[in-house]
Amino acid sequence: MIHSLTLSDVLAEHARSRPQVTAVVDGEVRLSYPELDARVTRLARALKGRGVTAGERVLWLGQNSHAVLELLLACSRLGAIFCPANWRQSTDELRFVVEDLAPAVVVWERSEAAAPLATEAWVEDYAALVEEASAAEFPTPATPDPAMPGSPGPDDTVPVLALYTAAFDGRPNAALLSSAALLAHSTSLLVVRQMEPGFTFLNNGPLFHVGTMMFCLATLQIGGTNVFTPSFDADEVCRLVDAEKVTQAFLFGQMIDAVVAANAERKYDLSSLRFVSHSTEWDEMTTPNDSPWCRSKMGGYGQTEVGGMLTFLGLAPGAAGFAGRPSPLVQVRILAADGNEVPSGEVGEICARGKTLFSGYFARPELNAQKSLYGWHHTGDLGRREPDGTITFIGPKLRMIKSGNENVYPAEVERVLKSHPAVADAAVIGVPDERWHQAVKAVVALKAEASAEDLVEHVRTRLASYKKPRHVEIVESIPKKGFTPDYDALDAAHGGGNYPGA
Amino acid sequence: MIHSLTLSDVLAEHARSRPQVTAVVDGEVRLSYPELDARVTRLARALKGRGVTAGERVLWLGQNSHAVLELLLACSRLGAIFCPANWRQSTDELRFVVEDLAPAVVVWERSEAAAPLATEAWVEDYAALVEEASAAEFPTPATPDPAMPGSPGPDDTVPVLALYTAAFDGRPNAALLSSAALLAHSTSLLVVRQMEPGFTFLNNGPLFHVGTMMFCLATLQIGGTNVFTPSFDADEVCRLVDAEKVTQAFLFGQMIDAVVAANAERKYDLSSLRFVSHSTEWDEMTTPNDSPWCRSKMGGYGQTEVGGMLTFLGLAPGAAGFAGRPSPLVQVRILAADGNEVPSGEVGEICARGKTLFSGYFARPELNAQKSLYGWHHTGDLGRREPDGTITFIGPKLRMIKSGNENVYPAEVERVLKSHPAVADAAVIGVPDERWHQAVKAVVALKAEASAEDLVEHVRTRLASYKKPRHVEIVESIPKKGFTPDYDALDAAHGGGNYPGA
Repeated sequence: MIHSLTLSDVLAEHARSRPQVTAVVDGEVRLSYPELDARVTRLARALKGRGVTAGERVLWLGQNSHAVLELLLACSRLGAIFCPANWRQSTDELRFVVEDLAPAVVVWERSEAAAPLATEAWVEDYAALVEEASAAEFPTPATPDPAMPGSPGPDDTVPVLALYTAAFDGRPNAALLSSAALLAHSTSLLVVRQMEPGFTFLNNGPLFHVGTMMFCLATLQIGGTNVFTPSFDADEVCRLVDAEKVTQAFLFGQMIDAVVAANAERKYDLSSLRFVSHSTEWDEMTTPNDSPWCRSKMGGYGQTEVGGMLTFLGLAPGAAGFAGRPSPLVQVRILAADGNEVPSGEVGEICARGKTLFSGYFARPELNAQKSLYGWHHTGDLGRREPDGTITFIGPKLRMIKSGNENVYPAEVERVLKSHPAVADAAVIGVPDERWHQAVKAVVALKAEASAEDLVEHVRTRLASYKKPRHVEIVESIPKKGFTPDYDALDAAHGGGNYPGA
Repeated sequence: MIHSLTLSDVLAEHARSRPQVTAVVDGEVRLSYPELDARVTRLARALKGRGVTAGERVLWLGQNSHAVLELLLACSRLGAIFCPANWRQSTDELRFVVEDLAPAVVVWERSEAAAPLATEAWVEDYAALVEEASAAEFPTPATPDPAMPGSPGPDDTVPVLALYTAAFDGRPNAALLSSAALLAHSTSLLVVRQMEPGFTFLNNGPLFHVGTMMFCLATLQIGGTNVFTPSFDADEVCRLVDAEKVTQAFLFGQMIDAVVAANAERKYDLSSLRFVSHSTEWDEMTTPNDSPWCRSKMGGYGQTEVGGMLTFLGLAPGAAGFAGRPSPLVQVRILAADGNEVPSGEVGEICARGKTLFSGYFARPELNAQKSLYGWHHTGDLGRREPDGTITFIGPKLRMIKSGNENVYPAEVERVLKSHPAVADAAVIGVPDERWHQAVKAVVALKAEASAEDLVEHVRTRLASYKKPRHVEIVESIPKKGFTPDYDALDAAHGGGNYPGA
């Protein structure tokens, strides 16, 4: 108990240590840490009255809002699990999540996104819940109430946040993260991002993704200010950065260009943003930041299951591998399918252990056993150690080809093919082979002239010989499923088969 | 297991992630991370051969050396506990430590400091141990060897380091720190000190104190370089800073003046030191650092039992309380003797919970129960929350006076008395009182003229009235035990008694 530190504990400390600091800004709402703490206590009591006890789930249907942070903290106070649903999903997809997670309470916000489900009898209106929580006279409990600050609360190793991840096995899965993992991850961001007291984060990215949530929580941990806006809107981002003196926002690539365009007339002062360099105009509007995180163009590798970022380019100045080096609170191993570590320079699965790791998926015992084989979390992604010890992320390990007893990962061969100047796109499949069980086949779309021999030679000089394609087929375009090749369609069209385990 | 991260795990990761980084420099010895990892593995095997298994203790008798870090890491690999003894102690004091800790192995270094004990039969020579560890052919074990890297090692919650602390209850006690606590504390230093890859720390302070050890471990965690020197020597510090491009050393006050004097002729380039401002000459020789840690003149509050620092002034720019705010990984409460939190502005005991806390004292079950009353670690120190939420450290809570049902802590009243311009030194005791049970009595040494009424009035205007002395006695000097007043002698000489609990 003496070593436990939950998200709720962090809030209880800030209520004492930072009585004058603004914790939350959201439209008209502006709360100091003591005010946020008091609201969370009331909300926890109201949720408890609806049967939300330790281990029960609370689902949020709505866009970004301070309600997301308040519900998460109230669940932490109760030992319950909070899940912000992806509001971009279809109603059918949302319905799957509701059935899968079986939440004790679903809280919705009056918005278009969540409207289709709000007709269900079990959905609670957040505004009504908060109103009731504020108004109700709660009796003082005779025994210590775990929802009360100061009394011994839940342990920090129990899950507190559930985030649904990509449907890599055909359905989305809810990754469970404990307070211990979330706070360890936040601390690693504080280190690499060199976040200081006074940090103000604009939550303009979706909070159902770990990318925004991880900064929201790091800002909470350092006692900074979280500003919420429903979703990305370039004008509103400019207005809020100016008004709230925002230090960082969830902005990348085209979003930055949109902000630059929205502020073309320099109507807003964005100089409080201490940001990575992007373009001349952007660099003029903002203040360049020299933390390792910004110096390294924010490179790294991560996924929800490791709490966010597993490796940081900022920890590896001049790195050979673009994913950089592991966070100070984890270990990484590049493992073969048999659990043995592959030598430096060879491709294997990126596996991890450490303080930031998730606690498995909700209600997926078999998948959890698979993912934690040999005591290491298997990310499902391929990587390689470079001679300088840094890590290169190769691509998702979607399927494996077995040729002459050797493992060939399509993603690795595709990466090399795509580095050929004449190749527009490429996919690699395994076709049945009498002698080798499977042979590597490349399906390639060209943007300039190149012979099959050219392409095979390009791979042969860059990878182990058994990885080079034995067959090459030129096509107009590669069929896709989201961002990845549609391997089932490719197998059907180009004779794929004999995959190991199939 | 998947969430565990021991000191040994950190080393195993660095051996992969930082194959070209120098981990250790000590005289002629210069080891990369893979070399350090290999030495630690051999050392762990040699220690195991001498009966050092999980939970057993290994004691080091010697000055600073890379051996300290190697033995600590080898113990981490075995689940054993490492203790670097205070080599400034008398032989009798060292003998108490040996009997108290009952180590399986005592390792000594051929030095004057450790010589008196080295005649004992059970003392191992470090050089001989390392030689044997390097030469021996260890059979490959049939079952996974927990001393082997890669195999599941001990959990990170078991103690790995024992540091003896002040004899506040009449004998020194060994505070036990786990890998989890040490690495959480290191991470808080990485945050506040903004340590980056490439950090090089000169271990010139004693490694048997948490003050130097905590920087040694933070340097290990970020994958930097630890330079060892037996003890503080100003010339040697200059030489090593220049030769190894040291980023930080364990230097304060007079030590800095000595380094400035040693480098008066600017023989050495000390510009790699990114340090806090101290004097014009020092600031010219070194590079000013603007991390929160340095900006705040390194203020804060800590003790071995919390892993090092509990609060940092660097986390509280413009703070009212000089101890600043808690590290991001702990909670602090100012508690009354009954376990209730005292209101802001009132003095109570500084109590703590969180990731950096120790695991109790070795073999002190009763003391451990006392120190962790109500689920909070009781530091034995008095503090106060200021209106801005920051913390002021008042002084050690050595004893308490009970007057009219109110608690009066001598340290608090003494602090105020000593702020009077005429007071050279002061001590406060409780004397029996018919009406109030005890009355506050001040024993004061003066450096200028002042009346008893002046002194009482000085306290009355600064503290609650019941804390002001009802009796004042002027003396030549205050008897001391170490740095604190000798209260037993004061009670005997000035009529003290009726203490609560006595």
